[in-house]
Amino acid sequence: MGMGAALNLAGRGHAVSGCEIREAAWAELEAAGGRCVGAPGALPAGLDALIVFVVNAAQAEQALFGDGDGDGNGDGNGDGGGLARLAPGGVVLCCTTVSPETARSMAARVVGSGRLFLDAPVSGGAVGARGGSMTVMGSGSPAAFDRAGPVLEAIASKVWRLGDEPGVGSTVKMVNQLLAGVHIAVAGEAMALGIRAGADPQTLFDVISSSAGSSWMWQNRMPHVLQGDDTPHSAVNIFVKDLGIVLDQARALTFPLPMASAAHQLFLAAAASGQGTRDDAFVIRVWEALTGIELPNPNAGKPAT
Amino acid sequence: MGMGAALNLAGRGHAVSGCEIREAAWAELEAAGGRCVGAPGALPAGLDALIVFVVNAAQAEQALFGDGDGDGNGDGNGDGGGLARLAPGGVVLCCTTVSPETARSMAARVVGSGRLFLDAPVSGGAVGARGGSMTVMGSGSPAAFDRAGPVLEAIASKVWRLGDEPGVGSTVKMVNQLLAGVHIAVAGEAMALGIRAGADPQTLFDVISSSAGSSWMWQNRMPHVLQGDDTPHSAVNIFVKDLGIVLDQARALTFPLPMASAAHQLFLAAAASGQGTRDDAFVIRVWEALTGIELPNPNAGKPAT
Repeated sequence: MGMGAALNLAGRGHAVSGCEIREAAWAELEAAGGRCVGAPGALPAGLDALIVFVVNAAQAEQALFGDGDGDGNGDGNGDGGGLARLAPGGVVLCCTTVSPETARSMAARVVGSGRLFLDAPVSGGAVGARGGSMTVMGSGSPAAFDRAGPVLEAIASKVWRLGDEPGVGSTVKMVNQLLAGVHIAVAGEAMALGIRAGADPQTLFDVISSSAGSSWMWQNRMPHVLQGDDTPHSAVNIFVKDLGIVLDQARALTFPLPMASAAHQLFLAAAASGQGTRDDAFVIRVWEALTGIELPNPNAGKPAT
Repeated sequence: MGMGAALNLAGRGHAVSGCEIREAAWAELEAAGGRCVGAPGALPAGLDALIVFVVNAAQAEQALFGDGDGDGNGDGNGDGGGLARLAPGGVVLCCTTVSPETARSMAARVVGSGRLFLDAPVSGGAVGARGGSMTVMGSGSPAAFDRAGPVLEAIASKVWRLGDEPGVGSTVKMVNQLLAGVHIAVAGEAMALGIRAGADPQTLFDVISSSAGSSWMWQNRMPHVLQGDDTPHSAVNIFVKDLGIVLDQARALTFPLPMASAAHQLFLAAAASGQGTRDDAFVIRVWEALTGIELPNPNAGKPAT
């Protein structure tokens, strides 16, 4: 998703530097007029904004604060992180899904360094990122929103201003991920049961999509199953992580989540059986493995032998 | 929902007789030109179509076949049921949510009596029934569809023809109810977590409704919670029943449903704590009872003291 955001920024004439360890990915951004580096400490100095689009909280903290000064002694002064490359008064947009607590602690450290922080998790997936049509669930100071404005305009079609305090955006995102993860898991369960009970999968999809049982995820993910296409637009492992964040956060609040917990177990089961890097809709393979149902187009996308 | 269907039929000039044990409900249909009776055996003879809109399979079988001839001896000859009032070649529309197996067994008995049977479960709720805008998930013989045509046209805006065999409609309906029940339960869980984590409930609703975490049920039911209105448009007890049907049916297929099972437990918990006759969105009161969160407008609809 970071590539999608970077391409949209470059396309609007912003000077963009992408930080990406996989050098094979550099050509695409460079062709769009951006430049690429392999580590946060190699970013140019004096940046106006720093967008953090990584997998989890640990990577986000590493990207921002580094784990040392590059001499390998781990003294933690942070000059290996991207924050040191941000101009005073510049803004960090944290678009990574992290816990509200993590968002608040990162914000305190960024603000303490004389920069601004926007808690800015997103919805819309890789497709939304490429299209510049993500939804941002933002919270932070008015100054942070102002400074981030040109970036948000380039990468998102909808920006929610949910409050002045970092953490509110991540709270709303956490609730969204809870729902999204449960909806994918139950979509798999429901389609699997329908197949077992003798329903035609495509017809079942069509009927449910126009009925009270529909969800955004049902409509978005079940076509992957119908087509037998497990290319990971968003992988099973992402929901192993995101529902894990939700459950950890709820545990910290002593708050029971039986539905999210059941869904998390199913994503873990899918990952345990070797589906972790496949599209998250293929959590349905848990039922395939258990019950022997036949999924539609089981050989789509596999090399001919 | 039966009243909604009857009113739409009467409004289109059909001669309609409603069977309703609560005599207080008779006036509404009578004002629309229909007549009412208190028992299936009291329906006029020679009916063209018989619509079965009751709560469960036991009631559906009772309504169709009766449990005797009215002399209380339980000889089961069925002349106390509505089927005997149906003209030869007339059609039964079974709009009740029953298991596919029950639909098939009822169909066999109806067809054996020289009438037609349409497996015709619906989606759309009481509001859809009143508006004549239900979705019918139908399966049955072409002759049954033909004979039921004028009725379907009056009560539904969408009729799916899912196959020639009774049971397919109920299978699809079962999958729809699985999804609907899970979506309501997780909507409660997600809203409850958001409230506990400090999100504004209305804002949370607005953001999620336009994000990937949305569902038909989230958008339809959460406004009841936001308004504090627990008037039972569809009651908690309906999902105690419908998810029970889903789980029984899956057990008969030796098919595991961890998501539906978790949701069923939550509806049972809501019913156990006295919420069974309240709107199903108030499954959220399980979390209220457990965690002490404060729901929006907790005193709406309660008499002033």
